[in-house]
This record gives sequence, structure tokens and C-alpha cells, in this order.
Amino acid sequence: MKTRYLCTQNQTDKIMAENKKLSIIAFSGDFDKLTAVFTLGTGAAAVGYEVNIFFTFWGLDAIKQKQGRSFTGGNWLTKLFGFMMGGLKVTPTSRFNFLGAGPKIFRYLMRKNNVATLEELVEAAKALGINLYACEMAMHVLGLKKKDFIPEVKDVLGVASFLNLSEGGQTLFI
Amino acid sequence: MKTRYLCTQNQTDKIMAENKKLSIIAFSGDFDKLTAVFTLGTGAAAVGYEVNIFFTFWGLDAIKQKQGRSFTGGNWLTKLFGFMMGGLKVTPTSRFNFLGAGPKIFRYLMRKNNVATLEELVEAAKALGINLYACEMAMHVLGLKKKDFIPEVKDVLGVASFLNLSEGGQTLFI
Amino acid sequence: MKTRYLCTQNQTDKIMAENKKLSIIAFSGDFDKLTAVFTLGTGAAAVGYEVNIFFTFWGLDAIKQKQGRSFTGGNWLTKLFGFMMGGLKVTPTSRFNFLGAGPKIFRYLMRKNNVATLEELVEAAKALGINLYACEMAMHVLGLKKKDFIPEVKDVLGVASFLNLSEGGQTLFI
Repeated sequence: MKTRYLCTQNQTDKIMAENKKLSIIAFSGDFDKLTAVFTLGTGAAAVGYEVNIFFTFWGLDAIKQKQGRSFTGGNWLTKLFGFMMGGLKVTPTSRFNFLGAGPKIFRYLMRKNNVATLEELVEAAKALGINLYACEMAMHVLGLKKKDFIPEVKDVLGVASFLNLSEGGQTLFI
Repeated sequence: MKTRYLCTQNQTDKIMAENKKLSIIAFSGDFDKLTAVFTLGTGAAAVGYEVNIFFTFWGLDAIKQKQGRSFTGGNWLTKLFGFMMGGLKVTPTSRFNFLGAGPKIFRYLMRKNNVATLEELVEAAKALGINLYACEMAMHVLGLKKKDFIPEVKDVLGVASFLNLSEGGQTLFI
Repeated sequence: MKTRYLCTQNQTDKIMAENKKLSIIAFSGDFDKLTAVFTLGTGAAAVGYEVNIFFTFWGLDAIKQKQGRSFTGGNWLTKLFGFMMGGLKVTPTSRFNFLGAGPKIFRYLMRKNNVATLEELVEAAKALGINLYACEMAMHVLGLKKKDFIPEVKDVLGVASFLNLSEGGQTLFI
């Protein structure tokens, strides 16, 4: 994090967000959408929101231990999916991917313009105490275990449990 | 439904969700996103949420009578769109579609891991009394009539009416 | 606007929406999703909702001054992105784009069926006093300045400020 520009700098003094809550269902594995997930999450957490992120389907990529391509999964088919999904370092943008150049260009622009990169945003999420959850059902489908995820993942939840803890706040599906 | 794993099993005892509401604007026609719509909807309904789903644009696919490819629509152009959109049985995944293999692999993984498939989730939605609505404007654009949809569709609504009945709950755009 | 069909006609009498609020994070630059943003926004505003739209990433396309392809941006790389993103008149649909034919077909269908087109919806948004905001961080990344946007853009905001003004209403990520 250090000196990089975070979207909420010089706003912390303006906003009091105690007792406010933001919950995000992180479904997409696209680089730009995951960036949105963590930008919104860290932006809200930085001003005092309780932030809950529920990773499901392609979004589970963001919380995998192995961030490069890896054969994570219970059998050869889920392993293959795991390999193709890739992980945070190789995830494509939803538009203008150009065989992987898209995310590189974005990273370059973000560094150049002193904006926190996706990896930095994930680190910020951990530092800000954002609650990270993994979707039970998607883990079943993709053959993933809790041990496949980064240790910061707080719990494995079903949909209803997540919706329940999101009550009373703003909930987004990304 | 029967013995298959639903994301909310063994959670019903933990959560009391009376007077809670989940509303979903189902815009996407992608297989994985429609799965998310129905997983979230049935998961919430199973623990007592009032659930409202508003199908619009590509999402209207999910509630069409004819679930294979069919020429549904008022003129040749909307008929062509209807054919291309295809319906629930041929809808693609948003990533890794592989000319239709993606959804097949998903279905296989879901069956193998004893997770409810999309068709089963739609049946569950009906059984759980989820309120299904169709978007008036999108029907105009695509030349669709109420009779083109499954009889469980409760009403044809405008945007404002749907937002109004979503008030006081969580609303997601998928 | 004039005599075209808007999704909320003949609903204004049915719904009282004073003190209600709809906030949209407009992330996507796809033609169909931007249509959804403005359809939802104008639909809600027409019945009295306070409507706030926060344009970020690809969504910034919708509020650029130059609506055709243009080299807007701080350096050659962001200029190139600006050119590729194109602007409202050349933005693709998320499915069935057919090298640009998709949006044309949609426009045709919308005109033919007397539904407001995207440009008309943007005009309606201005007329209805919808609050348009641009995302500070995305502007940094893409090298955009406030002067690159239409004058109706009310302010440049960070994530936390937007979430804060969305409190107490429904918030959607599109």
C-alpha cells in the first residue's frame, strides 16, 4: 500500500460510516471486475464500513492460495478448470483482453498513475479486516477445499447465510 | 429436487428469515449467471425470504415455454434473436463456453457432485413460490408475449413497479 | 422523448415513490447494459425516485463529450483505450455483437417497437434530473478529466462518497 493512491484518500475525514455495511457477491473472475470488487470493498472499509465479500464461481479465483495457473481441484476435470481459470495473476479483463495484454496494460496504467493494483488491493482488504467468505456450493462444483484458499478466508458459507449477514446494508452482485 | 444437494440444506434451522426480501433483476442469459440467479433465489426462499425475480433482456430466456432453440417472437428479426438466444437448454456460460461444451461440463460436475442443476433449480423456484416477473419493455423490444412464457410467470411489469415491490429488501442485478 | 414508449408510462399514477432512492454503479460499457442502466434510472426517476448514477471503468463511455470514437485521454495509451472504448454510438452489445450489427439491430427493434433508444434515455436522464457522477479512480487510470465529460456530470467522486450518498436506498452494480 504505502504511498499509492487509494480511491478513498482524503475522504476519510469527510465521511462517518460507523454501523454501515457493504456486502459483495464476487461472482466474476474478470480482472477488471475483481478490481471493482476490491476497490469498492477497501474504499468502504477505509471509512469504517463493515465489508463482507462472498466469493463464488469464477470469483473464487481471487482467494486461491496458488495465484498463478495451477491444477487445483478434486479430479482431472475440476483440475483442468482450475488451470484454465488461472488465478489472480493471469485473469483476463472482460473487454480488450488481447491474449492477456489487457490486464498488463491496466496494471501499467495503474502503476503509472499511482493507483493501487489488484494485488495491492487484496493486501489492503486483508489489512482493513474485510470479511472474506467462500461459497459452499461453488466449491462442491469446482472440487475446491478450504485449504485451497488463502488463510484470511474466514468461513465457508451457503447463500442463505451470506444474505442473512448482509441484511441491513447495501449488497452488490459483481 | 429430491435428494440432491441444495445450497441451503442444514441451514434452515440456523436462520429465521421471515419478513426478509430478496429481489433479483435477471438480465443475463448466461448459463452460469442464471444458475446464480436461481441458486440465490431458492437459497433465500428456502429459509423464508420473499423472493422476486424480474426477467429482462437475455434473462427472458429462462422463462420461455420452449426451452430448446425456437423461433419465438413477433417478426423474422425477433424470431431470429429468439433462435440465437436459444433457451435454457442451450444457453452458454460467460467464460469457457467451448461451442457449448462449457454448460455440459458444468452440468456433469453439478450432477457428479450432487448439486442441483439449473433445470432443477427452476423447478425448485416454482415449488418454493418464488415470484417470477417479465419486463414489459424488453418484451416489446424482442416481440414476446406473456403466452410465450411458462405459466408460473406471475405478471408483466415495468421497471418502476418492480423497484417498488423490491423496496425494503436486498436487490441484485445479475 | 416526445411520444415514444417509456417503460413507466401509465405507471406514474399507480406508484408514489417520494423519498425513495435508486443508486447505480455503471461499470459496463456494453450497449445492452448501458440501456439497462438508463432504463432503470429513468423508470425510477419518472415516478419520483432520487436517482444517482456513478460511472466507472467502461461505463465512463456513456458520459463522454465525444460520443463517436475519439482519442480522449492523457497519453497515447489511454488515448488508444479511449478510441477502442469508442463512446455511446459504437459501444457493442454483450452478446451477439456481430462486428457492430448487434447494437444496430437493437436500435432498429427499439425504434420499430416505439421504445426509447439509448440516446433518448440519456436525454431523458438529464431532463429528469438524475444525478450523474464520475469515478475519480477510473478517471486516473484512463487519463480522463472532468472536461472530457458532458456538462450534466454533477461531480467527480470516490467510491466511499458514492456509497455514502446511496445509503438508505437500493444500490445496483451493472
